[in-house]
Amino acid sequence: MTTKRIAVVENVLSANDRLAEDNRRLLDSARVFALNIMASPGAGKTSLIEQTVQRLAAELRVGVIEGDLATSIDAERAEAAGAVSVQINTGGNCHLEAPMVRDALAQLPLNEMDLLIIENVGNLVCPAGWKLGTHLNVLVASVPEGADKPYKYPSMYNDVDILVVNKIDLLPYVTFDMDFFKRGVEILNPGVTTFPLSCRTGEGLDAWLNWLKTSVADFRSTR
Amino acid sequence: MTTKRIAVVENVLSANDRLAEDNRRLLDSARVFALNIMASPGAGKTSLIEQTVQRLAAELRVGVIEGDLATSIDAERAEAAGAVSVQINTGGNCHLEAPMVRDALAQLPLNEMDLLIIENVGNLVCPAGWKLGTHLNVLVASVPEGADKPYKYPSMYNDVDILVVNKIDLLPYVTFDMDFFKRGVEILNPGVTTFPLSCRTGEGLDAWLNWLKTSVADFRSTR
Repeated sequence: MTTKRIAVVENVLSANDRLAEDNRRLLDSARVFALNIMASPGAGKTSLIEQTVQRLAAELRVGVIEGDLATSIDAERAEAAGAVSVQINTGGNCHLEAPMVRDALAQLPLNEMDLLIIENVGNLVCPAGWKLGTHLNVLVASVPEGADKPYKYPSMYNDVDILVVNKIDLLPYVTFDMDFFKRGVEILNPGVTTFPLSCRTGEGLDAWLNWLKTSVADFRSTR
Repeated sequence: MTTKRIAVVENVLSANDRLAEDNRRLLDSARVFALNIMASPGAGKTSLIEQTVQRLAAELRVGVIEGDLATSIDAERAEAAGAVSVQINTGGNCHLEAPMVRDALAQLPLNEMDLLIIENVGNLVCPAGWKLGTHLNVLVASVPEGADKPYKYPSMYNDVDILVVNKIDLLPYVTFDMDFFKRGVEILNPGVTTFPLSCRTGEGLDAWLNWLKTSVADFRSTR
C-alpha cells in the first residue's frame, strides 16, 4: 500500500511540474515577474503583501493570488491595498498546486501587470515540494515563531530563494536567538538573501521594496 | 489519476484509524491519559509541555512523544523538564500517524506513567485528519498568529476538544481582535473549553494545570 501510494504521488508531482512550466511560460510571455510566498500560519504573508502593494502602487501594477483553505479575507485585504486579486479556496488542501494557479492566472489581466504575488496556504511543510511556475520562492519567517524553525523545518528553508524575517519589532518581548537562527539558515541555504523587517512599524521594508523593484525591472528589461 | 489517489489515501486513513484504536486500548489498559497537541509552527507547543511537565512533576508521571520533521531539540527540552520522552522524526511527513505513535509507545514505560503528551508536527492543516489514539485533541493558538486563524483553518478548529491561546503577554504589542477570534471559534466549535495563557510569564497556566490534573484523576478513577 505504501509503495503504491508513493508512486501515485510522484506521478501527481511530475504532472504538477509540467503545468508549472506552462504557467512560467505564460508569465514570461506577459512579462510578469512572479513570487510564491510561503510561511507558517500567521507569520505575516498577507501583511507583507499589503505593505508591498500599497508602497509600490505608484510604480508597479501588482496582481495577487491568495491561497487559503477557506474564506476570502486575504483577497479582500489585497484588493483594499490596491492590487487586482483572485482568491483560491483549496477546500482541505494544505498547499497550492500548479493547476490551481493556472486557473487563477486565467482570471487576471496579465498584460496589465508587472508583478504577481502568490500567497500560498500557511504551512511550513507541504508547499515546499509543489512548483507553481513562479520565478522565485520567498519564505516569511517571524520572530515569535522562535529561532529553531530552520532546524525543525529544513525542507522549506533549504529550498527558498529569499528569506524575510518579519515582526522584528517583537524582538524585545520574546526569546529569539538571532545568531542561532542565522546559523541554522546558513547550514541549509548558504548566502540566501535575507530581509529582516516589521510590517507593523515599517522598519526594514525599504530594503525589501528596493530589491523587489530592481528584480522586476531587471526581469522586464530582458524580455 | 485524482480519483485513484483519493481512494488510496482513504484506505491509508482507515488503516490508520484501526491502529489508533489499538493505541487507545493500550493506553487505557495502562491507565495513561493521553493528549495530542497540535498547532502552527512556533505557537508554543513545546513551551506548554515544558511548563506542564515542570509544574506537575511532583504530582504526575508524564511521558512525551515529540513529532518533528528533523532534530531532537524538542525531546531534549521535554527530558530537561523532567519527562521521559521519545522523539519521532517523520522525515518529510507533515503530520504524525498512528503507526509512528505505536512504535513510540513501545519505547515508553507506560505502566509507570499517568499522562502522555504527544506533540504533533507544527502544522495547522494536515494533522487534523489523523487519529493517533489519544483521549483528547488540544489546539494551541498563539496571539501573534492573528485573530483570523479559526476562519482560515476551520478543519483544525472544528475538531479539537481543548483550545489553548498562548502568548497573551504579547497582546499589548500586536493587533489581535479577541472578540473576532472568539466569534470564529464559537461558530466552528461552540463551547470548546479554552485556556488563555502565557507560557513565558505563567499567567493563566494554573487553570490549564488544574483542568489537566482533574482530567487525569477522573480518567484513572474509572479504570
